[in-house]
Amino acid sequence: MTKKRTENYKKHVGQVPGSVIYTGKKTNKKLHIHSFDYTKENIEETVLLNIEDAASYKETPSVTWININGLNYTEEISNIGNQYNLHPLVLEDITHTGQRPKIDEYDDYMFVVLKMLYYDDSENIVVEQVSFVLGENYVLTFQEAEGDVFDTIRDRLRQNKGRIRGLKSDYLMYTLIDAVVDNYFSVIETLGNKIEDLETELFAGTQREGINIEVQQLKREILKVRRAIFPLREIISRIEKSENSLINKRTLAYFRDVYDHLIQVSENIDIYREMIWSLMDMYMTTISNKMNEVMKVLTIIATIFIPLTFIAGIYGMNFEYIPELDYKYSYFILWVVMILLFVGMIIYFKRKKWL
Amino acid sequence: MTKKRTENYKKHVGQVPGSVIYTGKKTNKKLHIHSFDYTKENIEETVLLNIEDAASYKETPSVTWININGLNYTEEISNIGNQYNLHPLVLEDITHTGQRPKIDEYDDYMFVVLKMLYYDDSENIVVEQVSFVLGENYVLTFQEAEGDVFDTIRDRLRQNKGRIRGLKSDYLMYTLIDAVVDNYFSVIETLGNKIEDLETELFAGTQREGINIEVQQLKREILKVRRAIFPLREIISRIEKSENSLINKRTLAYFRDVYDHLIQVSENIDIYREMIWSLMDMYMTTISNKMNEVMKVLTIIATIFIPLTFIAGIYGMNFEYIPELDYKYSYFILWVVMILLFVGMIIYFKRKKWL
Amino acid sequence: MTKKRTENYKKHVGQVPGSVIYTGKKTNKKLHIHSFDYTKENIEETVLLNIEDAASYKETPSVTWININGLNYTEEISNIGNQYNLHPLVLEDITHTGQRPKIDEYDDYMFVVLKMLYYDDSENIVVEQVSFVLGENYVLTFQEAEGDVFDTIRDRLRQNKGRIRGLKSDYLMYTLIDAVVDNYFSVIETLGNKIEDLETELFAGTQREGINIEVQQLKREILKVRRAIFPLREIISRIEKSENSLINKRTLAYFRDVYDHLIQVSENIDIYREMIWSLMDMYMTTISNKMNEVMKVLTIIATIFIPLTFIAGIYGMNFEYIPELDYKYSYFILWVVMILLFVGMIIYFKRKKWL
Amino acid sequence: MTKKRTENYKKHVGQVPGSVIYTGKKTNKKLHIHSFDYTKENIEETVLLNIEDAASYKETPSVTWININGLNYTEEISNIGNQYNLHPLVLEDITHTGQRPKIDEYDDYMFVVLKMLYYDDSENIVVEQVSFVLGENYVLTFQEAEGDVFDTIRDRLRQNKGRIRGLKSDYLMYTLIDAVVDNYFSVIETLGNKIEDLETELFAGTQREGINIEVQQLKREILKVRRAIFPLREIISRIEKSENSLINKRTLAYFRDVYDHLIQVSENIDIYREMIWSLMDMYMTTISNKMNEVMKVLTIIATIFIPLTFIAGIYGMNFEYIPELDYKYSYFILWVVMILLFVGMIIYFKRKKWL
Amino acid sequence: MTKKRTENYKKHVGQVPGSVIYTGKKTNKKLHIHSFDYTKENIEETVLLNIEDAASYKETPSVTWININGLNYTEEISNIGNQYNLHPLVLEDITHTGQRPKIDEYDDYMFVVLKMLYYDDSENIVVEQVSFVLGENYVLTFQEAEGDVFDTIRDRLRQNKGRIRGLKSDYLMYTLIDAVVDNYFSVIETLGNKIEDLETELFAGTQREGINIEVQQLKREILKVRRAIFPLREIISRIEKSENSLINKRTLAYFRDVYDHLIQVSENIDIYREMIWSLMDMYMTTISNKMNEVMKVLTIIATIFIPLTFIAGIYGMNFEYIPELDYKYSYFILWVVMILLFVGMIIYFKRKKWL
Repeated sequence: MTKKRTENYKKHVGQVPGSVIYTGKKTNKKLHIHSFDYTKENIEETVLLNIEDAASYKETPSVTWININGLNYTEEISNIGNQYNLHPLVLEDITHTGQRPKIDEYDDYMFVVLKMLYYDDSENIVVEQVSFVLGENYVLTFQEAEGDVFDTIRDRLRQNKGRIRGLKSDYLMYTLIDAVVDNYFSVIETLGNKIEDLETELFAGTQREGINIEVQQLKREILKVRRAIFPLREIISRIEKSENSLINKRTLAYFRDVYDHLIQVSENIDIYREMIWSLMDMYMTTISNKMNEVMKVLTIIATIFIPLTFIAGIYGMNFEYIPELDYKYSYFILWVVMILLFVGMIIYFKRKKWL
Repeated sequence: MTKKRTENYKKHVGQVPGSVIYTGKKTNKKLHIHSFDYTKENIEETVLLNIEDAASYKETPSVTWININGLNYTEEISNIGNQYNLHPLVLEDITHTGQRPKIDEYDDYMFVVLKMLYYDDSENIVVEQVSFVLGENYVLTFQEAEGDVFDTIRDRLRQNKGRIRGLKSDYLMYTLIDAVVDNYFSVIETLGNKIEDLETELFAGTQREGINIEVQQLKREILKVRRAIFPLREIISRIEKSENSLINKRTLAYFRDVYDHLIQVSENIDIYREMIWSLMDMYMTTISNKMNEVMKVLTIIATIFIPLTFIAGIYGMNFEYIPELDYKYSYFILWVVMILLFVGMIIYFKRKKWL
Repeated sequence: MTKKRTENYKKHVGQVPGSVIYTGKKTNKKLHIHSFDYTKENIEETVLLNIEDAASYKETPSVTWININGLNYTEEISNIGNQYNLHPLVLEDITHTGQRPKIDEYDDYMFVVLKMLYYDDSENIVVEQVSFVLGENYVLTFQEAEGDVFDTIRDRLRQNKGRIRGLKSDYLMYTLIDAVVDNYFSVIETLGNKIEDLETELFAGTQREGINIEVQQLKREILKVRRAIFPLREIISRIEKSENSLINKRTLAYFRDVYDHLIQVSENIDIYREMIWSLMDMYMTTISNKMNEVMKVLTIIATIFIPLTFIAGIYGMNFEYIPELDYKYSYFILWVVMILLFVGMIIYFKRKKWL
Repeated sequence: MTKKRTENYKKHVGQVPGSVIYTGKKTNKKLHIHSFDYTKENIEETVLLNIEDAASYKETPSVTWININGLNYTEEISNIGNQYNLHPLVLEDITHTGQRPKIDEYDDYMFVVLKMLYYDDSENIVVEQVSFVLGENYVLTFQEAEGDVFDTIRDRLRQNKGRIRGLKSDYLMYTLIDAVVDNYFSVIETLGNKIEDLETELFAGTQREGINIEVQQLKREILKVRRAIFPLREIISRIEKSENSLINKRTLAYFRDVYDHLIQVSENIDIYREMIWSLMDMYMTTISNKMNEVMKVLTIIATIFIPLTFIAGIYGMNFEYIPELDYKYSYFILWVVMILLFVGMIIYFKRKKWL
Repeated sequence: MTKKRTENYKKHVGQVPGSVIYTGKKTNKKLHIHSFDYTKENIEETVLLNIEDAASYKETPSVTWININGLNYTEEISNIGNQYNLHPLVLEDITHTGQRPKIDEYDDYMFVVLKMLYYDDSENIVVEQVSFVLGENYVLTFQEAEGDVFDTIRDRLRQNKGRIRGLKSDYLMYTLIDAVVDNYFSVIETLGNKIEDLETELFAGTQREGINIEVQQLKREILKVRRAIFPLREIISRIEKSENSLINKRTLAYFRDVYDHLIQVSENIDIYREMIWSLMDMYMTTISNKMNEVMKVLTIIATIFIPLTFIAGIYGMNFEYIPELDYKYSYFILWVVMILLFVGMIIYFKRKKWL
């Protein structure tokens, strides 16, 4: 993953600034452009086949949402960029998928990049870049892959549910960002479940081989999620504080709500982070205590028998003259001595609390 | 616990913003609405059976405190919200029990969410959300469960004790928040006692199985308490600094007092946090030192007897011709040699400070 | 200690704000009120028997210092409070000994709480609360116990030494606070000596039982001292920056001096803190290295004799036909073989740097 | 490396401030002065043989870029400095290669020092200092060695690619700095690959001798890179915020882009830092777990056989009268007893989960 | 060292503020007053024998530098203080050698305290206090001991080298402070060399007894140097930002240069700090890995021979009837069995990667 990020970046090194170059994974995904154009009363939903049609919505008073899937179609994206007068650096950032979440305000539009998170089928976190361009009466969204978290919003638009159809493009952008942030909660829930499963397992005293590596991977996932989510707080807070005319005063309360959610997600991530470190700590201590316990008992057994074996060795010697050997009760006396020694050592160790 | 928080949140994902949905534990609790309406001279205490009656207090010049128990009655809460003109996001936050402590100022009211802490019967910390709406001459409080920390204040109201009846709604909100914060002290006292019991036990050298898990749970409790209490400092400080006309200048000194208490609680929590880490550290060192001591002594015993056993083994061999075997005093000489060896090794180990 | 602090606080929970309740240890100490009233020329020193006499100094142009010992006499303190028009919360804070160092500015006086530190006879750090009320021409000080660090200042007043008699009440308060801060230096000196004694002991390689617990207690003492001293910095800095008319411009340089001293004390505390952690670290490493050294040598001895004992065991077997047994020089050859084996192993271990 | 840095500095200690003294490695590198002078239409590329020719470009309206390689030619650098009216401290900083990245604004020019990073042939990171002087219509760059990362920019100038020829000197400086920053990405990519190779190796369970030293060296490389890159963020941010007339408003967006890249690099460095610490941790735990596993099994084997050997020792004794010895089935019974003991111990250990 | 600092301070506790009391080591050093008085054209160098002569330079338009060695001559210092109208707290700070680096601005002079660092003959870091008083046309410097780092500046003055003679007293103070800061570089170079020697030694795998204590001492030295140097940054930055008329605008660039040097020194100190911690870490890991390696091999040897010895013990028993004993080839068969067992165990351990 790390490798990929920097490798992709390299394609870019040495290029003229503002070059529109796709830096994501190679892909055969088709370009998919989907648009909504609505007022409180009417709504028109279209799949655009021709990139030039995108421009036609620009000047209408109705609110337009154009969603573009497929960042590898750099030419078409440049095309849309020109229609909507986007700065070359904006186009560069849209196609450069290693972008850090950011906000840039231009004269007549606002540009926001953020990260969508989800778990793929093999339970790995996928980080996908979504870029927003907010204009007077339009929102453009650019995504890498086709699946997204915006379906509930599409339904709300179609069914005229909630306030969304009656408000402007800034409220549309808010609902889109809110959908992305809401989705963070299900990601950190999965993360939380993984940590709790691990905790339950560790509390039960399991000692599996791969547990270290699993913990290492969880730490990495947390790092990844942090990296995607944390910069977003600052961005939302800047939207709140910007006195940009694109954002209605009434919408600000909603952005503050998103901000509160982000703080909550961030806190949870930090708690998971602390939990996993503390968990590992506790686990290591438990293991090492158990190990010590075993070693101590075994060592004590060895320690008791070694002197006894020595005594037996003494009377196994073949000296011509060992007086004890001839005495009839020697053998029984020896057993008594050895049993006394055994019991004495046990008592001594118990008293010393070694056993 | 963590699981619950995020799971509940999920019910909420994808909803229209401002949806009033209860996210707490399922419950059969009945809705309980209880109101005080007072001036310096008169006081009227009522249990409201009909939700519509709540509105009648809104415009009276007397101070009104309406306490609503039962956040699962979302419809009734929406109803009250409409009577008092509350913003949809406020109603959403009231019923969404995973809310982080927060403050929001609206045109004619102030909205505060905080956390009430107490230990339940099985000695687990319970975090319960309490929301306050402070208006010109009313305070609305919304709670999840019926028991609370406000009984002393109810008594003070009934008996006209202290300044409370002579002052406005802001002073009422102050006393309510103060009661919640005062209760934090008994929670951290219990926490402190648990830590000290553990410390006493560890200093006594006890080596119990579950001690790691207990420490882990204490760390978690501290995390939970921190999370509930720390954001409150910022909220109180914002009340202090806001030049909101709802808050009298005279009341500010009292809020500053609450702030000082919160700083004190926070400091104690951080000290407990540090103590428990340092305690665990000390415990691990003690255990490992003790263990090492045991291992060393046992290893020394083994080390002394192994060469002696070797010597005995030599003279247990059955070679035809071993000259020492025939000599009469061999056996006694051997004993002398072995005893000298034994004593020599003991002295050597003592001198090396290994014993 | 921790227990006491929170326990005492509990007496207070649920009380009407501004209640004057003593939260310190139960005590039979008598109330002791002692006053100085001075100008550059005259000085009058009195022990006040009657609480009402305190008021008489309030309006005189001469500077008055009234020192009250015995915070358990809450009624008398309320009495003085009323004479000097102190806010109920000020009186609450004076008698509430768990107070954090703080400063509150009121219209015509300034209220400062700080902590006096000293070691008692059994070498435990005692933290005692001292409250100051600075008015136009008076300073009130409230202390828990009778002994204090102000005797040199009393002498200076009596003997008209230095600038003190010629200046106003703000300079008096400065000298009092300066005396408290100067005393911190002797406390941290004792602390420093304890740490250095421990360090010397550890460097000498001592391995005592209770060393962990001692270190734990030193860490706690440092925590306690930090807690008492650190908030004071902010308070002095606020006095410096406040443009309160009670503080003369000329006195500011002196407060800046106190501030510099506090920074110095704080730095020393942090250095001690770091030293004790690093010391413990070094100690643990030394112990564990020594232990390892011992274990290695002993294990090597065992390892050398075990194969030799095996060989002796072979020729102790009673098989009918073991050809070596009958050969005359077998025994001597065996000795040679065993000695070679012994030497060979020693050389091998040396070469491997295991010995 | 560290040694070198401070050693070189020493040459400088005690010198008159503003002394132009080369503090880098001794070298025979020749002075190489290379200049571009361009407008949108024309471009002139020259290798300057005579240091005095540099001055001629100063007042032309065309944009001039003079690149000087060879900081050991202090006299020539002083010479250029005088032609362009540079402050003595600027000249001192140019030749003092241990300089920290910095920015200084003077009346009619801006001075920036930064660090170029690359891996040399033996895979060590090389940190090379590059200084920029930005004037109204010229950029001077001073480098230690001849190779650099500016070749793509030279090509862009020659081929009139992108916007560069049509814009002013500030855009030229931006492209040069951008080239340096872009190169950081390939450095941290190499660093990332090293860390991942190590991780793969460690996950595979390898236990090599030098792994500790390798990790130590990686930590050092990260330290070095941090030191070179982190101060640059502040510098770019100051360029952005400075309202210096040398920087066009239009160019600011580009500097903001560089700033975003720097934040990205910095984040990656910090992630690598955290990864390597966590990796080492995981590795140590794995090793120690494995070791413990081995020790436990071996100790168990020893523990099982020691009592059995003791029993055999008993019946190897030569007492005249040991009743068991004469009984015919003793030997077989003994075997049965020993096998039962063996199996019993195995079962016991299994049940205790020691095996 | 720590002891000394606080002990010395004690002499001071309870004194009237502004008391001029020497708190350094007892000493027989003679008072040595040395003065330069110069303009661009003339210079006069004198050793003042009479303290009263110092005053004569105060009002001359030429720049005067008076250097006083011997802080134990408190009376003479008070004397000079009065001649130059220094505040009592300034005189107190000059003689109080435990002072933290600080700056105080008075109406017509500026007071700066800083620390001179050098290694003494026994390779211990010595921290010596130097105080500066900067007036309109004079600089007073107060030092504890006679040797200092100002000789190059004296030479520059005598030989009229550089700008120094042509500029005012602020430039003189700059050069003096610059000399002190330049000297920090040689101190941290020595420190760096010590750390690198240690590193080389540790990388070579040496295992010396005192290495822990050495590391502990290095950590302490770093602490000491930090404490002396870090506060100076703030002081220089305050000189830069102060709009004090004593500091010429032209000199500010030079102070900024000193500031940059201090940042560089501070960074190096922090890097050394991190290096030494990480080094110790690596060392401990190496030691423990090596130890584990040894223990494992030795334990394996023991484990292999213990079962073999058991077998030999079996056939050393003296039972009347052990069938194997009478069989002729038993002995040889047994050898085969034992060798197979030996080889089998070796293979098993190899396969398990225990060997």
